[in-house]
Amino acid sequence: MSSNADDEHSFAHQITVRWSDCDPARIAYTGRIPNFALEAIDAWWEHTIGLDWYRLNVDEDIGTPFVHLSMDFRKTITPRHKLMCFVKLINLGNSSVRFSVVGKQDNQLCFEGEFVEAFVDAAILQKRGIPDKFRQILVEKLTVST
Amino acid sequence: MSSNADDEHSFAHQITVRWSDCDPARIAYTGRIPNFALEAIDAWWEHTIGLDWYRLNVDEDIGTPFVHLSMDFRKTITPRHKLMCFVKLINLGNSSVRFSVVGKQDNQLCFEGEFVEAFVDAAILQKRGIPDKFRQILVEKLTVST
Amino acid sequence: MSSNADDEHSFAHQITVRWSDCDPARIAYTGRIPNFALEAIDAWWEHTIGLDWYRLNVDEDIGTPFVHLSMDFRKTITPRHKLMCFVKLINLGNSSVRFSVVGKQDNQLCFEGEFVEAFVDAAILQKRGIPDKFRQILVEKLTVST
Amino acid sequence: MSSNADDEHSFAHQITVRWSDCDPARIAYTGRIPNFALEAIDAWWEHTIGLDWYRLNVDEDIGTPFVHLSMDFRKTITPRHKLMCFVKLINLGNSSVRFSVVGKQDNQLCFEGEFVEAFVDAAILQKRGIPDKFRQILVEKLTVST
Repeated sequence: MSSNADDEHSFAHQITVRWSDCDPARIAYTGRIPNFALEAIDAWWEHTIGLDWYRLNVDEDIGTPFVHLSMDFRKTITPRHKLMCFVKLINLGNSSVRFSVVGKQDNQLCFEGEFVEAFVDAAILQKRGIPDKFRQILVEKLTVST
Repeated sequence: MSSNADDEHSFAHQITVRWSDCDPARIAYTGRIPNFALEAIDAWWEHTIGLDWYRLNVDEDIGTPFVHLSMDFRKTITPRHKLMCFVKLINLGNSSVRFSVVGKQDNQLCFEGEFVEAFVDAAILQKRGIPDKFRQILVEKLTVST
Repeated sequence: MSSNADDEHSFAHQITVRWSDCDPARIAYTGRIPNFALEAIDAWWEHTIGLDWYRLNVDEDIGTPFVHLSMDFRKTITPRHKLMCFVKLINLGNSSVRFSVVGKQDNQLCFEGEFVEAFVDAAILQKRGIPDKFRQILVEKLTVST
Repeated sequence: MSSNADDEHSFAHQITVRWSDCDPARIAYTGRIPNFALEAIDAWWEHTIGLDWYRLNVDEDIGTPFVHLSMDFRKTITPRHKLMCFVKLINLGNSSVRFSVVGKQDNQLCFEGEFVEAFVDAAILQKRGIPDKFRQILVEKLTVST
């Protein structure tokens, strides 16, 4: 997992961290942080293929459950700065995609993580290949960001 | 990360998965699952040293922010069964602790993960050693569960 | 809205308030508190008709969206005591039910609220009558708790 | 509680409703909706006095716990449209403020609610008057929106 991500080639998603995200230590609660990264990935899908998880699932019958996530927390997150999340597609399998997500506040690294989603038929939650209509778009994203 | 955890030596924490935890795919939302594991770790502390994160932080001025988490999701989680989380202390550093958390429903593996907390002075969020009064208890937990 | 609820006739549901529920004021975040009451109502359904919201919706195709909620907060909620939620069915319409939910910690009133759910066909989210097979059970609950 | 709010005089806050907000009924979970309104009120404070709840509490030692909330849900909320929340200050007491919050998607009323915050010293959670430095700003907001 590399933190010197080339942020120019990644998708940037801004999050306003709020009082409601913070615990009595006055920092964003650990359990909220994967949710920030997931929100950024949901926004990446909408940006990349024009469909967020809701539309992908409900309208297209395509589910993308996560099979893995890992995060290293480098610096505490607070409401004092916007949280910028940088999403990059870093691997494309037959039926899965792997993302790198880097979170920064005030230009300082707060977290870096990797997230893997599998493609399934939404109705039956059974593994399927990445839909043809999305594969070319994803290949291009992968190429750009390598 | 091993899934054939010796569950007899780990702390078991039961969670009732609810409608409110589920997304339109009718399974627990990915972002909820780290929160299940974190709840189990909070309960482990209360069980092990008699202080949950709230009392540890507010009453003892000891913070334990997470520096790492990783999870592999093996099976979808639903409200149809109780979620049993098994927590084990698997490493004890100078100022950090590493846990394995395994989640099962109906005796089937749903997730396995590892979580690392660092010890800090709560007021200033600066790294500190593991408090002496807890170290011996933790050493014994580590020994037992290896 | 009355706080001297006859708690013997209401359904008691216990919640462990955690670090994760608290904000930097070191009390449960306001936005968490309706969720505590909703969890208690979900548990009430499971206790009363043997089906929680998940099974009612997914297995029986019966949805029960909320059309109203109101809460008065009397005392801050913390992790120092268990939160006892007392649920009573206080009105039964043709296609809706009204609950009183009272929350107490250490025997002191923390909140009192009212919540109204409507019955709908889950698939189409259209209003429907209360299912016959549940009405008699609900009538009895209503009688008992008046 | 009136739904024909003069939205021109209220503060508008836009929320992107996501997959993560929705339950298996494919609509925003009830427990999420008060959180949408609270987020809009937090944004109102930042807009109105230049301090959100985090800074108000942590930097100014002023707490504003809620003593009341009520909501009527008129239409289900989904990720298909942005959720526009309109916040108005509708009453100003000695030590409390009352807001109206109206939520709309695609120009249709989804919810309307009222929320009351009390002013307290953050350190001791004891009631206090509205700080002089904020009162005049609040009076003007109240005048404008009546």
